[in-house]
Amino acid sequence: RRQGFPEIVFGEGKTAEQILTIVQSLRTRNDSVLVTRISREKAVFVQKECSDFEYNEIARTLAWVREKPKSVDSYIAIVCAGTSDLSVAEEAAVTAETLGIPVRRIYDVGVAGLHRLLDNIDEIRGATVSVCVAGMEGALPSVLGGLVTNPIIAVPTSIGYGANFNGLSALLSMLNSCASGVSVVNIDNGFGAAYNAAIIYKLVHKKEVNCDEDFIF
Amino acid sequence: RRQGFPEIVFGEGKTAEQILTIVQSLRTRNDSVLVTRISREKAVFVQKECSDFEYNEIARTLAWVREKPKSVDSYIAIVCAGTSDLSVAEEAAVTAETLGIPVRRIYDVGVAGLHRLLDNIDEIRGATVSVCVAGMEGALPSVLGGLVTNPIIAVPTSIGYGANFNGLSALLSMLNSCASGVSVVNIDNGFGAAYNAAIIYKLVHKKEVNCDEDFIF
Amino acid sequence: RRQGFPEIVFGEGKTAEQILTIVQSLRTRNDSVLVTRISREKAVFVQKECSDFEYNEIARTLAWVREKPKSVDSYIAIVCAGTSDLSVAEEAAVTAETLGIPVRRIYDVGVAGLHRLLDNIDEIRGATVSVCVAGMEGALPSVLGGLVTNPIIAVPTSIGYGANFNGLSALLSMLNSCASGVSVVNIDNGFGAAYNAAIIYKLVHKKEVNCDEDFIF
Amino acid sequence: RRQGFPEIVFGEGKTAEQILTIVQSLRTRNDSVLVTRISREKAVFVQKECSDFEYNEIARTLAWVREKPKSVDSYIAIVCAGTSDLSVAEEAAVTAETLGIPVRRIYDVGVAGLHRLLDNIDEIRGATVSVCVAGMEGALPSVLGGLVTNPIIAVPTSIGYGANFNGLSALLSMLNSCASGVSVVNIDNGFGAAYNAAIIYKLVHKKEVNCDEDFIF
Amino acid sequence: RRQGFPEIVFGEGKTAEQILTIVQSLRTRNDSVLVTRISREKAVFVQKECSDFEYNEIARTLAWVREKPKSVDSYIAIVCAGTSDLSVAEEAAVTAETLGIPVRRIYDVGVAGLHRLLDNIDEIRGATVSVCVAGMEGALPSVLGGLVTNPIIAVPTSIGYGANFNGLSALLSMLNSCASGVSVVNIDNGFGAAYNAAIIYKLVHKKEVNCDEDFIF
Amino acid sequence: RRQGFPEIVFGEGKTAEQILTIVQSLRTRNDSVLVTRISREKAVFVQKECSDFEYNEIARTLAWVREKPKSVDSYIAIVCAGTSDLSVAEEAAVTAETLGIPVRRIYDVGVAGLHRLLDNIDEIRGATVSVCVAGMEGALPSVLGGLVTNPIIAVPTSIGYGANFNGLSALLSMLNSCASGVSVVNIDNGFGAAYNAAIIYKLVHKKEVNCDEDFIF
Amino acid sequence: RRQGFPEIVFGEGKTAEQILTIVQSLRTRNDSVLVTRISREKAVFVQKECSDFEYNEIARTLAWVREKPKSVDSYIAIVCAGTSDLSVAEEAAVTAETLGIPVRRIYDVGVAGLHRLLDNIDEIRGATVSVCVAGMEGALPSVLGGLVTNPIIAVPTSIGYGANFNGLSALLSMLNSCASGVSVVNIDNGFGAAYNAAIIYKLVHKKEVNCDEDFIF
Amino acid sequence: RRQGFPEIVFGEGKTAEQILTIVQSLRTRNDSVLVTRISREKAVFVQKECSDFEYNEIARTLAWVREKPKSVDSYIAIVCAGTSDLSVAEEAAVTAETLGIPVRRIYDVGVAGLHRLLDNIDEIRGATVSVCVAGMEGALPSVLGGLVTNPIIAVPTSIGYGANFNGLSALLSMLNSCASGVSVVNIDNGFGAAYNAAIIYKLVHKKEVNCDEDFIF
Ligand SMILES: Nc1ncnc2c1ncn2[C@@H]1O[C@H](COP(=O)(O)O)[C@@H](O)[C@H]1O
Ligand SMILES: Nc1ncnc2c1ncn2[C@@H]1O[C@H](COP(=O)(O)O)[C@@H](O)[C@H]1O
Ligand SMILES: Nc1ncnc2c1ncn2[C@@H]1O[C@H](COP(=O)(O)O)[C@@H](O)[C@H]1O
Ligand SMILES: Nc1ncnc2c1ncn2[C@@H]1O[C@H](COP(=O)(O)O)[C@@H](O)[C@H]1O
Ligand SMILES: [Mg+2]
Ligand SMILES: [Mg+2]
Ligand SMILES: [Mg+2]
Ligand SMILES: [Mg+2]
Ligand SMILES: [Mg+2]
Ligand SMILES: [Mg+2]
Ligand SMILES: [Mg+2]
Ligand SMILES: [Mg+2]
Repeated sequence: RRQGFPEIVFGEGKTAEQILTIVQSLRTRNDSVLVTRISREKAVFVQKECSDFEYNEIARTLAWVREKPKSVDSYIAIVCAGTSDLSVAEEAAVTAETLGIPVRRIYDVGVAGLHRLLDNIDEIRGATVSVCVAGMEGALPSVLGGLVTNPIIAVPTSIGYGANFNGLSALLSMLNSCASGVSVVNIDNGFGAAYNAAIIYKLVHKKEVNCDEDFIF
Repeated sequence: RRQGFPEIVFGEGKTAEQILTIVQSLRTRNDSVLVTRISREKAVFVQKECSDFEYNEIARTLAWVREKPKSVDSYIAIVCAGTSDLSVAEEAAVTAETLGIPVRRIYDVGVAGLHRLLDNIDEIRGATVSVCVAGMEGALPSVLGGLVTNPIIAVPTSIGYGANFNGLSALLSMLNSCASGVSVVNIDNGFGAAYNAAIIYKLVHKKEVNCDEDFIF
Repeated sequence: RRQGFPEIVFGEGKTAEQILTIVQSLRTRNDSVLVTRISREKAVFVQKECSDFEYNEIARTLAWVREKPKSVDSYIAIVCAGTSDLSVAEEAAVTAETLGIPVRRIYDVGVAGLHRLLDNIDEIRGATVSVCVAGMEGALPSVLGGLVTNPIIAVPTSIGYGANFNGLSALLSMLNSCASGVSVVNIDNGFGAAYNAAIIYKLVHKKEVNCDEDFIF
Repeated sequence: RRQGFPEIVFGEGKTAEQILTIVQSLRTRNDSVLVTRISREKAVFVQKECSDFEYNEIARTLAWVREKPKSVDSYIAIVCAGTSDLSVAEEAAVTAETLGIPVRRIYDVGVAGLHRLLDNIDEIRGATVSVCVAGMEGALPSVLGGLVTNPIIAVPTSIGYGANFNGLSALLSMLNSCASGVSVVNIDNGFGAAYNAAIIYKLVHKKEVNCDEDFIF
Repeated sequence: RRQGFPEIVFGEGKTAEQILTIVQSLRTRNDSVLVTRISREKAVFVQKECSDFEYNEIARTLAWVREKPKSVDSYIAIVCAGTSDLSVAEEAAVTAETLGIPVRRIYDVGVAGLHRLLDNIDEIRGATVSVCVAGMEGALPSVLGGLVTNPIIAVPTSIGYGANFNGLSALLSMLNSCASGVSVVNIDNGFGAAYNAAIIYKLVHKKEVNCDEDFIF
Repeated sequence: RRQGFPEIVFGEGKTAEQILTIVQSLRTRNDSVLVTRISREKAVFVQKECSDFEYNEIARTLAWVREKPKSVDSYIAIVCAGTSDLSVAEEAAVTAETLGIPVRRIYDVGVAGLHRLLDNIDEIRGATVSVCVAGMEGALPSVLGGLVTNPIIAVPTSIGYGANFNGLSALLSMLNSCASGVSVVNIDNGFGAAYNAAIIYKLVHKKEVNCDEDFIF
Repeated sequence: RRQGFPEIVFGEGKTAEQILTIVQSLRTRNDSVLVTRISREKAVFVQKECSDFEYNEIARTLAWVREKPKSVDSYIAIVCAGTSDLSVAEEAAVTAETLGIPVRRIYDVGVAGLHRLLDNIDEIRGATVSVCVAGMEGALPSVLGGLVTNPIIAVPTSIGYGANFNGLSALLSMLNSCASGVSVVNIDNGFGAAYNAAIIYKLVHKKEVNCDEDFIF
Repeated sequence: RRQGFPEIVFGEGKTAEQILTIVQSLRTRNDSVLVTRISREKAVFVQKECSDFEYNEIARTLAWVREKPKSVDSYIAIVCAGTSDLSVAEEAAVTAETLGIPVRRIYDVGVAGLHRLLDNIDEIRGATVSVCVAGMEGALPSVLGGLVTNPIIAVPTSIGYGANFNGLSALLSMLNSCASGVSVVNIDNGFGAAYNAAIIYKLVHKKEVNCDEDFIF
């Protein structure tokens, strides 16, 4: 039952040693392993023993997959508004990829520069499901929701200052979206959005779904 | 493009006359029509002209479907914690049904009486996707998320008093859920949850998805 | 110094008798008089004595202008997202008109139906300044701000429910707008937005600006 | 009157020297001494003079008991949801133990992995009173409250991110618990919960209760 | 298992007819029945059929006990700060009495008139456990906690105005109490406090504890 | 006009050099100079040039008075709840003293140890006006307000954790005080409270009041 | 001890009958009686028995004084920003007058019309102490505090809408006032401000101060 | 289309290398370049390659203009309350200047020292539009709004402590301003205010307006 979906380790608050121990044990009984919220220092420490693990600086993830998923036509779109949201968007992208789901990144398409969003709208419409990441006023999921029919998982980010209140403005925007087809996860929770998207993707494309439910904070 | 998914009218803040006009125009070019957040008085007014519209007292919905969907094996589960959440749960159920999706209601399975939830867990596990409605501490989606693998759309309700702050406690709980596979919609937004679930259901079961995006508040 | 800009009376919390007395005194020394936030009942009472005052049901305003402004090419655009925001948008429109400013109404162009906004974008671009009214997630000013160069006065409305928190979500969105050229007034303050827009309009079009600064709550 | 219940020192904001002075004076007239919220550095400093004091790294406590309590059948259960909550749970456990109360630790039984909680439910049911520690959505006390009859002292922790708002989500959840028999203490207040549980335990088991009420912040 | 502790019905949001039906069914299999948050009108309706049910105007409770508890020496103290808090205090008192627990009322002993509190302190010290009800600044549990050793269940009330924010000020005060031995329930939750106190009382006095967990909101 | 009341410099955000320049200029035309919120490092730098300035470590103030006030019978009481509030209480005390007002310190008299407060009540009653400093639940001004007749200036402090929300709980408590004769200043604003008390003291005792109103942040 | 300061009854939440009983008992042993927050209906009921009680419609107070205070030179200034704040200002004024303190009303001097404030500044400067009432942005105490030296008791009112949040904006403004000599009471608490001012006035003018502390909410 | 208005780069969260690359590319196709929120360290790094860029320490901006704007009579006024607000005011000033708009600085004119504001009022009245920066209670725009007729863009700053809540008090004040002609931008958003003011200035003075909309966070 540990196949299909990888083990995912929440790196925050764990020492490099603890992560290494967990990771070494997991790789023997899993097809992939993902550590999120891990700093470069800790990652380097783990990579000394596990040289086939790949660190993603922006996403702050450390990932290993036994076998690359074969390329397919269907995919999840990871859409994000601005460069400051990249970290959360990449956490989502790497999570989905490690879960074996093909991903297409459509970045830097915030609503203040609508033409860029419209230029890419067909690719987003083609996705089985989209993860939509935005900070500040969090307007992107509302605009996107009006343009695409498939489900959108919205991720507010804590990017902004002042009356942003650490992501509250984007969170409230997304919860109040007047477009239908939008549901929301916690502020900065790129992992959670990708996980939701992955379940939907697997349901639609009849892949085996064996999620690991054992993660506890 | 107006087929498959019905026109949906947000009744709040519209007069009975306005609703009647809209509804009469919609039924000529659609296969189903749904009015949400409509009082009994307004519904009765509309029904005088449109006697085949059905009013649901608890959901506060007025609905009409040209043709009942033929019964199938797959379904959406509408799960709710307590009797006070019924209104929101029924709004979700009627919305899904009007969208042509088979629904199973699993009500009154709040976490303080865990046995009732466990008694019904197989039916929930069998659903393509679940809508999970809860007020007060909003703990149900977290417990459910640990027991089922398919996606859960969580709906916080404004049921409670004191430190509930009109649904804030349930909303925050759901956004912070430690179970994966849970995404969230606005407080009391039964309609939105069902709409999200319907899109996923149709994707999975290859039904034609022609959502109407004109639902305007 | 009482010319050019009218006297404006804040009707809320004043009796019909008080409003009548104020209004009768003002019209003798002014070119126009505006009462905002006034109910139909009170308006009817005033109109008995002042039959040339016009009541606007949606805006809840009672207005009188000595002389209609002659039509000109330049104008203020009053843009609004949905039907529920009409009341605030009309308060803005009537305020601007009573202040002698030509107004064009571009209503029902919320971001979830982008095509309608894009269909009207040239008219908005042609405005000296726009008032942009939106509730719920308040995304319209951000999208509009990216499409037009002239100033936008954004008005959040209290339209919504749940995590809308009486307009807080729209207010925070607008304050965090990633588009430049957007400034914000209080929730539901259609009057204030129009007043700001009117000052800018008069500066640009070299009209005499004699605002009455004496209003005190 | 200084017997039975130990002196408890709140270490935060006190220097190592201040703590040492207090601790040396207390041990002469008490049967036990407890310092909470104390860093390893300060603890090591105190231990140089007081080598029989034990430091608990996770709980961040420094404790000394003249005589170990003899083992008895009855006990307090310290229940906690996840590894991140360990620090608060251990503060509670050490506090209870220093107060002379037998403790059983039931850790890592969060609601997203219900089976682990159910596997341990008999041990929790056997406790005179439980301290229940949880962060994020804080759902554990509600589930536990439905499964056990004896009193539960719930402790929200500040574990989480985003819409957790430093423990607010867990706090509101617990205050709104739909299970009866649950009362709540401050966020991260493991000490306070254990102290409450200890008073109840001593009342039930007829031990002498001589609490020191003199602690002032 | 339905003995010892009564069935408790949350009256809010239920019709008089619904309450009557529940109440008639409960009394056949229970020793006592309690309805909380019930208006006089609904109570009168129920009393027509169930004339031995007693309505408490201030507590807004409707209660029936098969057999009065025999008087004993031990008791719960219900302490409250001001007359405005009476409604919550009485809800607590009636709940405890219906649960078969002797109650002593010590009312109107708010901290601004300290002498009244000190005059009654011995009676409060004699209680097995106290329920302490206060609105506005909610200071009473802190003062009481310093004067008594036994557990205190604090109930913030929504009494106050302005910066009281519907009980938030009293709630935060009680959660931050610098006195130990104080735990807190939801704003205005007199029922919950009494239920907690009753469990503790029964544990201490070796009464059979068979709580009904079916109290569902 | 610079006599009687000293110049007061807000040290936060100013460099040591800036403070020195200001201080040297002020002492030539004033009878006293006070710098608040200044670190030891900056103070030492200033003292090199101004060796007759006194640094108060706890209050974080640097003060100089041309002539000590002659001792009199009347005084301001600075009352504080716990050791953690000392910093704010001392800021108040030093401010009052530099303003030439005799001060009596009554510290560590928090409401959880009522006897200590009652032991000192006569000295507080003898004060012309009291400054009352408390963190956490901020209950002290309510208790004190019931015991003394003269005015109380209440200062909430940011001392506490969790649901304290950086002093919000104490602030709300004090604003909702059910005792009359209590007014409130900003969280941690020992300076402001003492300044208010000083004005009242000087009015009562007919001293010349020449406050400097020029301080601007 | 019941002389000098009157008995004050908080009318809100009391029935007309209860108020009558209290009032009749108080007048026999006091020189004056004041009921605040009392509706016209209740007042009329009381006046039937107590015809020498005077009702103030705006202040919503019912007051009786055995003997009018003889006119003196010194006075309290009640300053208010706008007509909407009149109710709170009058509650303050009537309270002070019933307490035997001469009052001068300086109304409608909000900061947006600065000249009116400056025209009246000498009268405010002449007051022993000022009560300063303002809603909306609550800026008046800051401006006033810079213009007068004597103490100012600031009262935020709940007047406003939208981002006013029922007086929160005015409350925060006043607590953050950059002018010294300003302290704050609860939102809409005209009574409390006047009571504070009265104590200060009596101290300064050597009147006997025998406050009644029994004002209970 | 890249003329007239410069490219503006948001420096926060970008590395020195990233900024250098952007800046070098922009200067070839623009007449001016502005980097905001950039530290001295990063600025020095960029200046090594781009020695004609000017760093403003207080504003934390790095700016380059091909050609200084010729001096004209009309201007924008940048008004600020206190020294602590200088950083935001200077960000506004430098932004406007880089946009080619003449600026006059009127600093340190907070409402607690009204005379300084009144001494400078004619210069502010002469401005086409004013940017008004204030922290703490944020009262300045209300006072200014009553004194000048032209538009005011208000900028709340995060300056203050305690109940300031990082600029919330100033933000709410400005949104609730009782003076008309005031609109608001985000807390500390000096850039946004200046950009708004610049658009208005250019409209009024018929300069070519070619705003760059690509400013992306
Ligand atoms: N970035 C993330 N945010 C939220 N949850 C995460 C994240 N990364 C991993 N998780 C969850 O945390 C669980 C592992 O937690 P742990 O056992 O503490 O490593 C995984 O199963 C995931 O479901
Ligand atoms: N709807 C409104 N919202 C905010 N301010 C308004 C509104 N209508 C009028 N005002 C202002 O209120 C002033 C009149 O207030 P008043 O003297 O109370 O009638 C006018 O001069 C306007 O500036
Ligand atoms: N971790 C803790 N959290 C809250 N209160 C504590 C904690 N540890 C000790 N206390 C209380 O603080 C008192 C001692 O405070 P102090 O006199 O400052 O050392 C003790 O009597 C305890 O009641
Ligand atoms: N600790 C403090 N808290 C609040 N305000 C203060 C404090 N210390 C000094 N002030 C005020 O700040 C003014 C000086 O500010 P500044 O000109 O920035 O030094 C003084 O006149 C005081 O009124
Ligand atoms: Mg859509
Ligand atoms: Mg799951
Ligand atoms: Mg723009
Ligand atoms: Mg239980
Ligand atoms: Mg105690
Ligand atoms: Mg008093
Ligand atoms: Mg002053
Ligand atoms: Mg103006």
